[in-house]
Amino acid sequence: MNTFGEKLRFTSFGESHGVAVGGVLDGYPAGISVDFSFIQKELFLRSPSSVMHATQRIESENVEYLSGIFNGVSLGTPIAFIIRNENNKIEDYSHLKDVFRPGHADYTYQVKYGYRDYRGGGRASARETVSRVVAGALAYQWLLKKGVKIYSFVDTIGNVSLPNGYVVRDMDRVEASPLRCPDMDTEKKMNSLLNEIASKGNTIGGAVTCIIKGLPAGVGNPIFGKLQQMLASAFMSIPAAKCFEYGLGHNAANFLGSDSNDAMAFVDGAPKFLSNNAGGILGGISTGEDIVCRVVFKPISSIGMEQDTINNCGDNVKIRVGGRHDICAAPRAVAVVKAMAAITLMDVLL
Amino acid sequence: MNTFGEKLRFTSFGESHGVAVGGVLDGYPAGISVDFSFIQKELFLRSPSSVMHATQRIESENVEYLSGIFNGVSLGTPIAFIIRNENNKIEDYSHLKDVFRPGHADYTYQVKYGYRDYRGGGRASARETVSRVVAGALAYQWLLKKGVKIYSFVDTIGNVSLPNGYVVRDMDRVEASPLRCPDMDTEKKMNSLLNEIASKGNTIGGAVTCIIKGLPAGVGNPIFGKLQQMLASAFMSIPAAKCFEYGLGHNAANFLGSDSNDAMAFVDGAPKFLSNNAGGILGGISTGEDIVCRVVFKPISSIGMEQDTINNCGDNVKIRVGGRHDICAAPRAVAVVKAMAAITLMDVLL
Amino acid sequence: MNTFGEKLRFTSFGESHGVAVGGVLDGYPAGISVDFSFIQKELFLRSPSSVMHATQRIESENVEYLSGIFNGVSLGTPIAFIIRNENNKIEDYSHLKDVFRPGHADYTYQVKYGYRDYRGGGRASARETVSRVVAGALAYQWLLKKGVKIYSFVDTIGNVSLPNGYVVRDMDRVEASPLRCPDMDTEKKMNSLLNEIASKGNTIGGAVTCIIKGLPAGVGNPIFGKLQQMLASAFMSIPAAKCFEYGLGHNAANFLGSDSNDAMAFVDGAPKFLSNNAGGILGGISTGEDIVCRVVFKPISSIGMEQDTINNCGDNVKIRVGGRHDICAAPRAVAVVKAMAAITLMDVLL
Amino acid sequence: MNTFGEKLRFTSFGESHGVAVGGVLDGYPAGISVDFSFIQKELFLRSPSSVMHATQRIESENVEYLSGIFNGVSLGTPIAFIIRNENNKIEDYSHLKDVFRPGHADYTYQVKYGYRDYRGGGRASARETVSRVVAGALAYQWLLKKGVKIYSFVDTIGNVSLPNGYVVRDMDRVEASPLRCPDMDTEKKMNSLLNEIASKGNTIGGAVTCIIKGLPAGVGNPIFGKLQQMLASAFMSIPAAKCFEYGLGHNAANFLGSDSNDAMAFVDGAPKFLSNNAGGILGGISTGEDIVCRVVFKPISSIGMEQDTINNCGDNVKIRVGGRHDICAAPRAVAVVKAMAAITLMDVLL
Repeated sequence: MNTFGEKLRFTSFGESHGVAVGGVLDGYPAGISVDFSFIQKELFLRSPSSVMHATQRIESENVEYLSGIFNGVSLGTPIAFIIRNENNKIEDYSHLKDVFRPGHADYTYQVKYGYRDYRGGGRASARETVSRVVAGALAYQWLLKKGVKIYSFVDTIGNVSLPNGYVVRDMDRVEASPLRCPDMDTEKKMNSLLNEIASKGNTIGGAVTCIIKGLPAGVGNPIFGKLQQMLASAFMSIPAAKCFEYGLGHNAANFLGSDSNDAMAFVDGAPKFLSNNAGGILGGISTGEDIVCRVVFKPISSIGMEQDTINNCGDNVKIRVGGRHDICAAPRAVAVVKAMAAITLMDVLL
Repeated sequence: MNTFGEKLRFTSFGESHGVAVGGVLDGYPAGISVDFSFIQKELFLRSPSSVMHATQRIESENVEYLSGIFNGVSLGTPIAFIIRNENNKIEDYSHLKDVFRPGHADYTYQVKYGYRDYRGGGRASARETVSRVVAGALAYQWLLKKGVKIYSFVDTIGNVSLPNGYVVRDMDRVEASPLRCPDMDTEKKMNSLLNEIASKGNTIGGAVTCIIKGLPAGVGNPIFGKLQQMLASAFMSIPAAKCFEYGLGHNAANFLGSDSNDAMAFVDGAPKFLSNNAGGILGGISTGEDIVCRVVFKPISSIGMEQDTINNCGDNVKIRVGGRHDICAAPRAVAVVKAMAAITLMDVLL
Repeated sequence: MNTFGEKLRFTSFGESHGVAVGGVLDGYPAGISVDFSFIQKELFLRSPSSVMHATQRIESENVEYLSGIFNGVSLGTPIAFIIRNENNKIEDYSHLKDVFRPGHADYTYQVKYGYRDYRGGGRASARETVSRVVAGALAYQWLLKKGVKIYSFVDTIGNVSLPNGYVVRDMDRVEASPLRCPDMDTEKKMNSLLNEIASKGNTIGGAVTCIIKGLPAGVGNPIFGKLQQMLASAFMSIPAAKCFEYGLGHNAANFLGSDSNDAMAFVDGAPKFLSNNAGGILGGISTGEDIVCRVVFKPISSIGMEQDTINNCGDNVKIRVGGRHDICAAPRAVAVVKAMAAITLMDVLL
Repeated sequence: MNTFGEKLRFTSFGESHGVAVGGVLDGYPAGISVDFSFIQKELFLRSPSSVMHATQRIESENVEYLSGIFNGVSLGTPIAFIIRNENNKIEDYSHLKDVFRPGHADYTYQVKYGYRDYRGGGRASARETVSRVVAGALAYQWLLKKGVKIYSFVDTIGNVSLPNGYVVRDMDRVEASPLRCPDMDTEKKMNSLLNEIASKGNTIGGAVTCIIKGLPAGVGNPIFGKLQQMLASAFMSIPAAKCFEYGLGHNAANFLGSDSNDAMAFVDGAPKFLSNNAGGILGGISTGEDIVCRVVFKPISSIGMEQDTINNCGDNVKIRVGGRHDICAAPRAVAVVKAMAAITLMDVLL
């Protein structure tokens, strides 16, 4: 299954080292002037060049739009786009042809398909998320016209976390921050930690908070189309995501009902929640408060240390994956989380 | 959206105090002898009568099968079933007609639909999950024939947790345990805590672990049909769920790659993972190890204490919801988590 | 697959001689006052008692609404309903247990499922369409508020056809006509023909025209969501349908482009087509003219004459199905065609 | 909606004179050696150069495969492909910018979207079907391995029809025939007719029969997944299709039950139908006999004669579309019908 969404349907395709990655966005309304430079800016935020402790590999992010846009304006027909893979002839991956890298999907793809593109992880590579960012940036342009804003940022790397949880800080800072962290002191500590971990050839986990502002009350559906369910599905589709939570999240287990329930009152004549433990959703439907959710990512699986594994020929072997990889997934994932949130919300609002 | 699944499609219907709740299970194969007593046993595990600190309200769990089964054997056609609501004329809910109970979906339903069944939460009531348990028990009968077993249990209530995380204990104990906890000492502490909280008219959160055994490697799909994504969607559709995690879960943020990656080796000639931090899934596809996941539930929203809220007439009001409710959602949710896991897995395996 | 539609999703269930047939209509908006007597009137038009040359079997058409309606007004939640089968204990079908009736789905169900409900055709019986009429009548109430009207009528039985094709006549006559034919002279000839065929224990084919008025231009979708495609899918799902056509239909093969194209002109300032060979659809999207389409039904398969067939035990056998069946499917199908058109149009318009 | 299918999902994109047309085929199994020359052969059968009385415009049919295939073998991941539009800068379409060509989708696209690519019909152009042929040729390679063969051919152009209906003749002849007709005498008459019509700048309708051999009994689904319903949906999505019929088709209205029902007998120990009026489907499920169906196409809308129409500025105008178009849609549609049948059948069989 490579399609996401019901009314806005995003189909993703492409292997890491095949000809191209790309996507088709179907259901995008006609008459929207597409801001191509905005898309490139979002892609830049996902690119290794804008992030510290990221791979030194330069990935092409040159988007070619194939359909659905005429004279810069959307037609209402499917928007197809591709980004060619330019590294695919440079590196030699033949030593990975038969071996299963720990933490990667090499083994599970082999079992499921019996045949796989072993170059750079093939379809399982995070390279695929570049298509999501293009589709998400298209969706986000539409959301902005509806008054919906999405903020995402790194809240945790290892044992370093933002002091006060998910509270929105100076969001303007996030995009300029090389670790996508809204707080400079925290970012410094994260940077020190990453330096230390990188020096050992190791990697580490992290977490991204996503806050959606401006979504009116009444959006979402009961039972099997709950807003949190769609966001969970969106975020758990991102490589390396291990946890989705919203509102009180995993801390909810240790809350009392009297502390968890958000009281209501009329404020200036308008219904208002006096707190937002719900994270902006009750019964699967938005309350009008900020949607506050979070994704936790496991450490990058490619580490520079020797590991035990097996190959496809029946041998126990040792592997050292090599060192041009990110140290932590979270900073570059910030753009992907935002993109998936945008695709999900546009789908729900259409 | 009241349908879940692609190949096995479960459609749920019914309001808490309407004529009936029920469901339609489409895609269930022909020729399966249905074990009706097994379904009733699963329903009993969800019922308040089998759980401590649950509502004293007796809910009917008398299932009428309308179609899809002939002489006790499935036909391959849709299996429709209903459970009539027998309490719907007894209680008077007219005092809740216009008021929005904190923590409930009253307000969001009102905004979305403009009209709602205010009796006992209507469609938003957890009464709806009774249909999931019937469908799940049908799915689980099929899974057992494929060698797949699902265990779910309470791991946390408030600040009381099982000592060693998700490790499988004496699972046979769980169904007999009135708090659905596999460890007697932990259960005692949970019981004390619940007594204390109940005495104050309050409620508390909790968490349920779900372990799936016997699922072969190679099940699931890349990108937008990831196994964790389908499980996240299934579990986040359960009322009061605030967090889904699998494998290292929310702790993944503080792990190193060298500790997180699961090494592999041939053991007795078979490929084997030497640990299971992955939680049984890599790249969206099962590894052949146990699937280990967890859902965290917020406290029950109906508390016996006075709360501030508003009504539909523009007034700030006080509300005290009353005392026939569960104290913690987790014990009864154990049956619902298992049911949703079963529906999801059967859908993926078909 | 027992669900039809994307935004309005109708799930059908039930075997002819099981406990009940019924359906779930999901996606129906909140706040619609349901006219239950209108639904019963539509059911009457499908019932054998309102049609000449129909089976003398009396089918229950007593609808019980289980959910989705509160105080007579729709809630926006799934509307579930059932109609119990009351004949299921009266007749003995055991002689049909192993034999495959020619023209029926007995053989194909047996091959596909290996196990079947042989009583009255089970799931393959046209009894199932009673659920479609309920769902269609709900959809049609909504369409009428949008100004959309649907007319369906018998245009052909055997070699007797309405003189001038699909032109709308006195539609008010159709519902009163026991053969659902808008022209009295034609109906007389149809009646004579049916008398003759019935006297021989035979059956005959027929055709139903469906005209949709009031649908604005711009409804439908290009490529794989074409309006004609959705109508074709809807109508070809009706038992015994062998042909779907719209506009020029099967006669289009013998038309010239100069005669087929509909010229346009501004009439009273509004864009207008000067003819309607297109049948109201161009490129999958409505033109604003009447949608004109047609379904052809094969003869009823149950005939009173001896036929050659086989049984499930490996024998060639003779069968005489017996005589309580309709002589022509078209008159009672008029209500089903209208219902499927209504469900389809509401789905497209939502 | 630009995606077709459930398990095999084909997404189509592209405007006639945009950058490219193309598609994504998701759900194609891993491990299939792709025969690229077979795909090109199928494309050739759709191309104007292989058909008489077709446009003299040369369309590029140079397929670039972007993903899903590694070393010539399918990966199980989405197969994306594009065919660039090379004519898009040569012709000037600005005179069609505001005018609505009769019989085309210009007007309905304008009303639906408010903005359109007027060059060569944009998304509504039959250029789009080139992507279907690529996807269909991939599907057909898989079907051939399962023993399923699809034959399609022109049976009617104007008043010239094959003498004995759909009976399979020398199918090897069809691909070599410049009108895709299996009978040389009939083809001669069709050619004379087309010469005459072309000389007047006019166009004409036609029909294509499709016969599927080798499909085992038991394929398809009851109620809303009927095989005829899926084929009807597939074929009615083809531009200019006005009628879908199978088995007795539109003639069914004038058949008696005793003539319509197909008797059965054991022949050489195997269950066999003694005739095939059913067209190979009963109750939505295949009987094991040939699937026989037919699509009727209206005349090509672009004619060389002056026609009355309107423009987008409020004027009644005259238009002459010009002469580089096909005279009859049927011969080139033969490849598209086959492709859609292949996609549909593979989807059902997966």
